[in-house]
Amino acid sequence: MTIQEPVTARPAGRPRSEKAEKAIIDATLDLIGEGMGVSELSIEAIASRAGVGKTTIYRRWSNKEDLVVDALSTLKAPLPVLTGESVRADLISLLDAMRREAGQRRSRCVMNIAMNEADRHPRLMERFLKRAVEPRREAMRAVIERGIASGELRADLDVDLGMAILSGTMLWHTKWGPAGDLPADLAERVVNAALAGMAPEGR
Amino acid sequence: MTIQEPVTARPAGRPRSEKAEKAIIDATLDLIGEGMGVSELSIEAIASRAGVGKTTIYRRWSNKEDLVVDALSTLKAPLPVLTGESVRADLISLLDAMRREAGQRRSRCVMNIAMNEADRHPRLMERFLKRAVEPRREAMRAVIERGIASGELRADLDVDLGMAILSGTMLWHTKWGPAGDLPADLAERVVNAALAGMAPEGR
Repeated sequence: MTIQEPVTARPAGRPRSEKAEKAIIDATLDLIGEGMGVSELSIEAIASRAGVGKTTIYRRWSNKEDLVVDALSTLKAPLPVLTGESVRADLISLLDAMRREAGQRRSRCVMNIAMNEADRHPRLMERFLKRAVEPRREAMRAVIERGIASGELRADLDVDLGMAILSGTMLWHTKWGPAGDLPADLAERVVNAALAGMAPEGR
Repeated sequence: MTIQEPVTARPAGRPRSEKAEKAIIDATLDLIGEGMGVSELSIEAIASRAGVGKTTIYRRWSNKEDLVVDALSTLKAPLPVLTGESVRADLISLLDAMRREAGQRRSRCVMNIAMNEADRHPRLMERFLKRAVEPRREAMRAVIERGIASGELRADLDVDLGMAILSGTMLWHTKWGPAGDLPADLAERVVNAALAGMAPEGR
C-alpha cells in the first residue's frame, strides 16, 4: 500500500492525495473506535467523515476490507531495531514495542473492537494477521531460535510455548493489568521472569 | 443470586420460576452473542426472546446491568477442586479450568463481546470481575504463595508476575493459538514451561 511509502518516493503533485489518504484512514479508525462494527461501516460513512468523495476512496481501495486492513495496520508500531547483542536484550526490545503500542488508548480501543469481530470477518482478520502480526511473530521466533542455538536459551525449549509465554504475559497486562500506563520496566521484568522460571534453581 | 442455589434449597412451587430464569439468562447471552451490545440490549428484547413478560424479569433483576452480570457469570466454569498435593498439580488444575472454559465456543464469543464493551460499562465490568474473575485470581495467588512458602517455587518470585505468566500464556492460546480446541495437555505444558523457565539451568 502506498500509505507506508516515504514521501520522497511519490511523484510530484501527490501531497493533496496523501492528505486525503490520512483523512480516510483516520475516519475509518474513528468510526471503528466509536463502536461502529466492520459490518456496519460503509464507504459512504467513511467518505462523509473524511470530507472526501466516495470516488477518492475507491481510487485507492477497491473495497472496504482492504481499507480496514490498511487502517488497522497503521496502528501497529514499527518493528523495533534489534541490536543482536544478546537474546535477552532483543526480547526486551520486542516486548517493549508491545508495551508502547498498548499504551496508546485509541489503538487499544480500536484494536479491541476489531478483534472482537474476527469471527464475523475471518478473511479480513487473516489478512491483517498476515500483514501486521506475523512479521512481529517471526521476529520473535528468530530471536528465540538464535538463543537456543547460542545456548542463551535452554536447548529443549518449545519455541511456540516460549513465544506464548512472552507475548501472553504482555497481553495479560494490557487486558487485565491495573489501569493506566504499563510500567516502563515491564518488558524487562517479564523477560527476566520468563527466562528465570518460577521454580527454584536446580529443580 | 438465586440462580446459583441448589434446587433443593428452593421453596416449593419454584420450578416454573427456575425455568423462566434459565430462559431469561439464555436469552440475554444469545442476544449478546449475536452482537447486540450491552448498550443496545433492552429488557423488552430479552423478555421477547425468552418468551416471558417484562415483569417476570423485573421480579428477579431490578435492572439490566444486574441481569448481564448474572448472565456472564454463568459462563464461568466452577473453581476446580485443588488437591493440595503439590503446587505444580494445583496450578495445572487451575489452568485446565481456563482451558475447558475457553473450549466452549459460545462462552468465548459472548465473553469477547462483553469484554469489548468494558470501557463503556465500567461499573458492570467491575462487578463482573469481582463476582466471577477475582475468586479465580485469589485461588491462584494462594497456590503461588503456598509454593513460595514451601520452597516449591522460588523465594524471590514476584507473585503478580507469576500469575500474569500463567494466565497470560493460557489467554494467548485462546486468542491467538491455532484454531480448534486447545490441546488437552496444554495446562500441564504451560505450567511445566513456566516453572522451568526459558534460560538454561544455572544461568
